[in-house]
Amino acid sequence: MINKLAILGVGLIGGSLARALRAAGQVREVTGFGRSRGSLDNALELGVIDRAVMDAREAVREADMIVLAVPVGSMHELFAAIVTSLPARAVITDVGSVKESVIADAKRLLGRDFARFVPGHPIAGSEQAGVGAATEDLFRGRRVVLSPEPDTAPDATARVEAMWRAIGANVVTMPAADHDRLLAAVSHLPHVLAYALVDLLARRADHKDAFACTAGGFRDLTRIASSDPIMWRDICLSNRTPLLEALNQYRGELDGIIRLLEAGDGERLREIFAHAKHARDGLNNNS
Amino acid sequence: MINKLAILGVGLIGGSLARALRAAGQVREVTGFGRSRGSLDNALELGVIDRAVMDAREAVREADMIVLAVPVGSMHELFAAIVTSLPARAVITDVGSVKESVIADAKRLLGRDFARFVPGHPIAGSEQAGVGAATEDLFRGRRVVLSPEPDTAPDATARVEAMWRAIGANVVTMPAADHDRLLAAVSHLPHVLAYALVDLLARRADHKDAFACTAGGFRDLTRIASSDPIMWRDICLSNRTPLLEALNQYRGELDGIIRLLEAGDGERLREIFAHAKHARDGLNNNS
Repeated sequence: MINKLAILGVGLIGGSLARALRAAGQVREVTGFGRSRGSLDNALELGVIDRAVMDAREAVREADMIVLAVPVGSMHELFAAIVTSLPARAVITDVGSVKESVIADAKRLLGRDFARFVPGHPIAGSEQAGVGAATEDLFRGRRVVLSPEPDTAPDATARVEAMWRAIGANVVTMPAADHDRLLAAVSHLPHVLAYALVDLLARRADHKDAFACTAGGFRDLTRIASSDPIMWRDICLSNRTPLLEALNQYRGELDGIIRLLEAGDGERLREIFAHAKHARDGLNNNS
Repeated sequence: MINKLAILGVGLIGGSLARALRAAGQVREVTGFGRSRGSLDNALELGVIDRAVMDAREAVREADMIVLAVPVGSMHELFAAIVTSLPARAVITDVGSVKESVIADAKRLLGRDFARFVPGHPIAGSEQAGVGAATEDLFRGRRVVLSPEPDTAPDATARVEAMWRAIGANVVTMPAADHDRLLAAVSHLPHVLAYALVDLLARRADHKDAFACTAGGFRDLTRIASSDPIMWRDICLSNRTPLLEALNQYRGELDGIIRLLEAGDGERLREIFAHAKHARDGLNNNS
């Protein structure tokens, strides 16, 4: 049970976590920090938070669980802001899509309190942003990766793990570097691919005709291109090396397909498509 | 009103067209041709067709509307099979995703009956295949491109146009070359991108971990990688030149993003992402 929860950044993820913990009876009071008064007022009206503050130091005062839920490029500002106001027994965690850069920020800025920081990443989300899209079941049945460092306090990790499990998430532990390489491939690369496709089409002289000729497949594929550009710029820059590796691998794959197409090698193309279809069909629920 | 409709290839598209025309009271009798007895029996049981034949010549006998709904790589076999059995007043159309190659096949194989062939492409579909997925509303509100040639009989075009309009589709006319370039960009390229991504990930040593870390965005983006590999091999080969152009443009876009990422140019990255988000948000219903 969390007595005082501080959600720093009350958007889709922070808001959904607050809602889920409240629905599960796992939290007594939720304080939300944000930089936009309107967004905080909205969170208050929606009942996502009990108290809204625009000073991060005030938000963490007396908190026993502090969750950083801002774009990864803004984490360092929050670490710097709260470090002098951290209650003695508070546990800190984050929900950033990149772990090594956030860990580096935390190590640099939290000093000896770094041991109470548990790097985390719930693999859930939506192209929709903002507290208005927050739901209490966003994390149910979803994977949450925790990447504790060698010097992370085991009891801090245990408390963060318990928090996620209490709202139905599947917690796995993984070194930050492994997390970042994996997510570069399955999440960051796909986002870049979708942004690139829509940007390319939108720059065509005939883009109106082009978009009018799109069907469900295109809409599915590009849905994530509606994601927040700042959040994704931050993720790309923060996870630059693994993402570049994934992008270059993908470019190699594409070059291979281009060569097969130039050669008219239908049999190899069919094999690649069939291999992909087999793997995609295997994803649970075929959803 | 169609008296005798011949659907050559009773899959998702052919089956949905038959269902829609029947639901709209636009057809008296539907004959289905296919190469798989089981699939035809299924179509009969589902009430999609009234009569099933495994001989294309028999299927078109007495038909006043003949719809070719097989993968584009198989169209030529059907043209060759039916040319000697075409009833005098029958109109022929197709639903292929590529138009220039199908037109070339038709021109070569239909001889003087080419004037009664109206090249068509309903821009609708699904990663699901087969008559079991056919629905009567697949084309409602969707765009259907017709690409009549200079020597296509105007009354033939008018009849095909009336057929699609009667089931709620929006018919537009466009030269085949324009259609093929546009569809290469908005449909064929995205399918290749999705296949390439899933193939790349499935070849990773840690593909099980990778797929376990996927979320909704990945599933949306790769849904079309579950599409029929043979159908898509045919489309790629049949529309090779425009598709290669689209693939090379996309590779150029990707190279640009790689360079920005290498240079750490967050501002330009954010601009590209924001431009894409703006365009994607603009697609109607934001669906």
